[in-house]
Amino acid sequence: MIPAELVHILYLVAIVAEAMTAALSAGRRQMDWLGVALLGSITALGGGSVRDVLLGRHPLSWVEHPSYLLITSAAALATIPVAHLMGHLRRLFLFLDAVGLVVFTIIGCDIAMGLGMPIVVVIASGMITGCVGGVLRDILCTDIPLLFRAELYATVSIVAGCLYAGGLWLDLPHDLVMVGAMLIGLAMRLLALRFGWSMPKFVYTESLH
Amino acid sequence: MIPAELVHILYLVAIVAEAMTAALSAGRRQMDWLGVALLGSITALGGGSVRDVLLGRHPLSWVEHPSYLLITSAAALATIPVAHLMGHLRRLFLFLDAVGLVVFTIIGCDIAMGLGMPIVVVIASGMITGCVGGVLRDILCTDIPLLFRAELYATVSIVAGCLYAGGLWLDLPHDLVMVGAMLIGLAMRLLALRFGWSMPKFVYTESLH
Amino acid sequence: MIPAELVHILYLVAIVAEAMTAALSAGRRQMDWLGVALLGSITALGGGSVRDVLLGRHPLSWVEHPSYLLITSAAALATIPVAHLMGHLRRLFLFLDAVGLVVFTIIGCDIAMGLGMPIVVVIASGMITGCVGGVLRDILCTDIPLLFRAELYATVSIVAGCLYAGGLWLDLPHDLVMVGAMLIGLAMRLLALRFGWSMPKFVYTESLH
Repeated sequence: MIPAELVHILYLVAIVAEAMTAALSAGRRQMDWLGVALLGSITALGGGSVRDVLLGRHPLSWVEHPSYLLITSAAALATIPVAHLMGHLRRLFLFLDAVGLVVFTIIGCDIAMGLGMPIVVVIASGMITGCVGGVLRDILCTDIPLLFRAELYATVSIVAGCLYAGGLWLDLPHDLVMVGAMLIGLAMRLLALRFGWSMPKFVYTESLH
Repeated sequence: MIPAELVHILYLVAIVAEAMTAALSAGRRQMDWLGVALLGSITALGGGSVRDVLLGRHPLSWVEHPSYLLITSAAALATIPVAHLMGHLRRLFLFLDAVGLVVFTIIGCDIAMGLGMPIVVVIASGMITGCVGGVLRDILCTDIPLLFRAELYATVSIVAGCLYAGGLWLDLPHDLVMVGAMLIGLAMRLLALRFGWSMPKFVYTESLH
Repeated sequence: MIPAELVHILYLVAIVAEAMTAALSAGRRQMDWLGVALLGSITALGGGSVRDVLLGRHPLSWVEHPSYLLITSAAALATIPVAHLMGHLRRLFLFLDAVGLVVFTIIGCDIAMGLGMPIVVVIASGMITGCVGGVLRDILCTDIPLLFRAELYATVSIVAGCLYAGGLWLDLPHDLVMVGAMLIGLAMRLLALRFGWSMPKFVYTESLH
């Protein structure tokens, strides 16, 4: 049961970290304080919300645990007075963001498996949980979603989901598979950040229309 | 029961006003007539639709009452021939938009309370109902949502929701609380527009990535 | 029963064609390979997903048939090596896109009728199924949705939906009505492309705010 508690603690760390990095995006767009709190909450909780809406699973996590809304709003607002320090904490936040990515992914896979979904949907559920919050943040800031161009972001989510689902399908011990999938995903993301790994890009310059 | 009927009439006025102002946004982007009707309907009915989808509440209002779709489409289209007059009616539309904000908010709170939701979700439901339509309009026009930067827009929604939920929690008479919350929210929004009140902005210029 | 099988085959052709044209949009934004697969899947399956979420209908098609996700991802990825040929196939893809529009529309109408929805919702369901995938693609590429400005795109969807629902209401034979509505919608779209037909645009240059 230690991993289940560990995952919950990591989840709380992750939504705080996601809300804080989203707050910096809000600051770059000169949003007001309420906009900062909203963008932080949408980014941190949006992936799980979209997953639950697509899977028809109610109530959503923040409807069942409204404290999550308060935590993410508070984390986003707390970023404002400490923003000048964030540059020094850049590496810490990239690390926490990577932790969030794998934790969200495993939680998303778990939920879809609990609903008896087929394996492709399990992995899609993990990726939606891990990645959609950042996509919503980018859409609300009218950026082209970083997801579609960043260093192995969604790829890490798919790999971690495949390892997790595959390990369980092989009947390996649950806690081992969970910790292993998270650590391998985390290492992959950190190495991609360190060495600038990325997927090949598709560059097309003609216009079809 | 007068307030319940009053709220329904104000709701109809509000969706008409929201559809008409959205039509002007469509005109600024040179959308075609059908685009005008669609953007008007999405703006007027989108907040309630997102709320219902997030709360798992079906059927959505326009599915149950398809006439709402016809009303908002007609209102948006009717804006085209009278657009040259809208400049003179600027204050009227800002007033009706403010009415819509507080009416949508109270309706959203009411629906979440009817589902037995906790207070934080009730207030979030009010804010989603009041504000998300405009966010969808801005996303479809590829603007950064005004909500995150405008004069106390979402703030008014939260204050009205808190007053309404708080008043009912104190067991004050329902109609009094409803009318009071709407009037105070309306006054706050109109004063913010008149005097340019806004929340402090968070300005951050460094790049974390 | 031939039309039912025909519709299913045309559906598969249509999601492949939608995924492939979306892949070209991804290439124009220099997305990576995974971004290409994701944008292709979201574009091809997003309209039906939004329809089902709004109507409260679960499971979504790709949750029930995960192979659809694999088909659209594969089609999008297969576009990368053949992209240099796509310019020559421009007319074929515009034709397949038009086929997809009317097929998606009829399927969307069918589903809403199966749920006993009123006629306005049936037609809206057809239009959402036919058009929302492209809107999601444009939002994720931060374009103003083409839908709101293109040659009779959503209009064709509404006309085909009205013909289909109207023909059934008149008790005409189902297969005849389905094929007729699809052919008329297809012809309308192709003629609009050929002759540059479009709806009148609403151009508004003043600022209300």
